[in-house]
Amino acid sequence: MPDSRLGHQSIAFPHSPAILAAACVSGPKEGRGPVGGQIDMVAEDALYHQESYEKAEHALFLAACNRCLEKAGMQKENIRAMLGGDLLNQIMASSLSARDLAIPFLGLYGACSTMAESLLLGAVLADGGYADPVLCAAGSHYATAERQYRFPLEYGNQRTPAAQWTVTGAGACMVGVGKGMARITHGTLGRVTDMGIKDANNMGAVMAPAAADTLLFHFQDTGRSPADYDQIITGDLGLVGSRLLCELMTEKGIPLPEGKHMDCGLSIFDPKDDTHAGGSGCGCSAILLCAHILPKIMRGEWKRVLFMATGALLSTTTAQQGETIPGVAHALVLEGGK
Amino acid sequence: MPDSRLGHQSIAFPHSPAILAAACVSGPKEGRGPVGGQIDMVAEDALYHQESYEKAEHALFLAACNRCLEKAGMQKENIRAMLGGDLLNQIMASSLSARDLAIPFLGLYGACSTMAESLLLGAVLADGGYADPVLCAAGSHYATAERQYRFPLEYGNQRTPAAQWTVTGAGACMVGVGKGMARITHGTLGRVTDMGIKDANNMGAVMAPAAADTLLFHFQDTGRSPADYDQIITGDLGLVGSRLLCELMTEKGIPLPEGKHMDCGLSIFDPKDDTHAGGSGCGCSAILLCAHILPKIMRGEWKRVLFMATGALLSTTTAQQGETIPGVAHALVLEGGK
Repeated sequence: MPDSRLGHQSIAFPHSPAILAAACVSGPKEGRGPVGGQIDMVAEDALYHQESYEKAEHALFLAACNRCLEKAGMQKENIRAMLGGDLLNQIMASSLSARDLAIPFLGLYGACSTMAESLLLGAVLADGGYADPVLCAAGSHYATAERQYRFPLEYGNQRTPAAQWTVTGAGACMVGVGKGMARITHGTLGRVTDMGIKDANNMGAVMAPAAADTLLFHFQDTGRSPADYDQIITGDLGLVGSRLLCELMTEKGIPLPEGKHMDCGLSIFDPKDDTHAGGSGCGCSAILLCAHILPKIMRGEWKRVLFMATGALLSTTTAQQGETIPGVAHALVLEGGK
Repeated sequence: MPDSRLGHQSIAFPHSPAILAAACVSGPKEGRGPVGGQIDMVAEDALYHQESYEKAEHALFLAACNRCLEKAGMQKENIRAMLGGDLLNQIMASSLSARDLAIPFLGLYGACSTMAESLLLGAVLADGGYADPVLCAAGSHYATAERQYRFPLEYGNQRTPAAQWTVTGAGACMVGVGKGMARITHGTLGRVTDMGIKDANNMGAVMAPAAADTLLFHFQDTGRSPADYDQIITGDLGLVGSRLLCELMTEKGIPLPEGKHMDCGLSIFDPKDDTHAGGSGCGCSAILLCAHILPKIMRGEWKRVLFMATGALLSTTTAQQGETIPGVAHALVLEGGK
C-alpha cells in the first residue's frame, strides 16, 4: 500500500506531477495591471462580446481552457478529467464550459481557493495514475460577483475601504506526470475556519485565519519554515487580510520574513485603479499563477514557492440565516527543474 | 509510474478501498418510505429543531457526518479529509458542517451526482494513500431546494406530473483501505451533457442522457455488460428519467434487462405519498446507498452493483440567461467480500 500522507493534513507526491501548460484570460482592468503583459488574452471590455456578464464569465472560462489545451498541444478528447469551479451559483461558468468541452467533469466549490483545490485534486489524480492529463481551472467576474453577493453595479454603491475588487478572468492549468513549467511536490488541505465575521465587504479578515491555519499545518507537517521557500504566495487576502496573516503568524512564532510574502490580490491591479483593499475572486490567484508565478519558476527565478489560494465561503443564503462567513485555504508546493 | 486508467474515462482501483461505515438521516416523509426503517435517524419534522429549513439542512448534514464517525468508531481528528456538497448556493450545508467538524474540506458541486462524485474522489485519495480515512457526504432539503430553484412552499404552487420531490436528508460514508461494508473497485467519470431541456420541473429528462452517456462509457471502458451486475442503480432519474434511460440504452444496443435497473428516486418514498415522478436531490441516492444498497451488499444479497448518481445542473443564474439545463452522472462499482 502506498502512503503519501505527511503529518496531519498534508500530502507528499511521490511522482511530483507537473503543470504541463498554463493559460489565462482577463478583463481590461487586469490587463492594465502589473502582470497584464503576461496574460494570454485580455478582453476589450467586461462583456467580452456577450449579452450579459454571466455569459461573459462562461465565455472567459472556456477561453482559458481552450487556450490551455492549445498551449499544451493537446486535444480535448485526450484529457481524462476537468476539475474546476467559479463563484456563480451552482458553478455555472465551469459546468457550461465542461459541457462545451465534453471532458469528464468534477465540479468543485472552494470560493477563491478553487485554483489550489483543483490543482491539489488534479495532482492526486495524475500522481496516482488515476487520470492524466487533467485540466484544472478557476474563474470569476467582477460584475456577476457584485450582483450575486452584494449589489448590482447599476446601484452605484459606495465601496468600503476593506472591500476587494473581484477579478474578471480565468486561469487553466494542464496537470500530468512529465516535464512541464513546475512540479507539484506537496499539498496541504485546509480546514474551514470561522472567526465570526459577517461583513461581506471584508473578505481579507475572513480568509486570513484560514490562511494562517493551513500555513501552520503545512510547516508542522513538512518540518519546514518560511526559509525553505523563495516566496509564500497567498491568493487574495488583499491589504487587510495580508496584514492580519502577518500578525497571526508572528503571534504563532513563525513570522513571515520581509519580502517573502506575496499576495495575488495585491499584485494584480494597477494601484492607480484604486481597488481599495486589492483584488479577489477565483480568477485572481488563477491569473497570477499562470501569468506570473509559473513563468518565474520556469525561468529559475524562484526554485520553490508555496502557493496558497484562500477562499471566503460567502453566501447570501447563509447571510439570510444570520450566519457568519467561514474561510478556507489550500496550499501547494511548486518547484522548478525536473 | 502507476496507471489505473481504464478505457476512456474510467478508473480501476488497484487497492479497492472500502466503504468502512455509512450513516444517513432524513425527514419524516423519507422515514415513511420503503427504506425508512434502515435510516439511522428520522427527524420528527423538516425543521429538525431549527429556525429555518436552511439551518435544518445544515443540521441534518452534520448529523449524518457525526453518526458516520460514530459508526466507524473514529474521532474527527483522525479523518484526513472531508469531501461533500449539497444544493444550497455555495454548498453552505456542507461548508458549515466542515467548519463544525474541523476536518480538512474539499467542497464539491455535482448537484444530485454529488454522493458518487465524493466517493469517486474519496476512493482516489484513499486508494493512492493520499488521504485515508476520508469522509464523503451529500445532502439536500425539499423546502430549501424548492425555495431556491423554483418557488417557496408558501406560494402553494401546483406541481407538474414530471416534477420530482427533493429528498430531505443526508448520507455520509467513511472511505479507507481496509475491511468494510463494500469495496469500490471501479469508477467512471461523467461528462456534462445537454439536450436543451429548460423545464425546471423535468429533471429526469435532463439527467437520463447523462446517465446513458456514463453508462455507455462504463461498459465500453470495462468491457462489461449489464449481465456483469446484480443491479444497475441510478440516483434520481425518477419515473420520466428512468423510462428515458431504458429507451436510450435500448437504442444504443445495450438494453437494461427487466429487474436489473433500480432508481433511488423511485425507491425512497411511499407511493401513497404521491410525489409525482419520484424523489430527487443529493440526499436521495446518498440515503438509499447508506440505508439499502450497502446493507444488501454486506448481507451478500448483491455481489456487484453499479451505483451511478445523476445530477441536473439547474441554476436560476443560468435560467435567467436563457440557458438550458445540463446534466452529469458519475458511476462506481461496489462489490462485496474482501
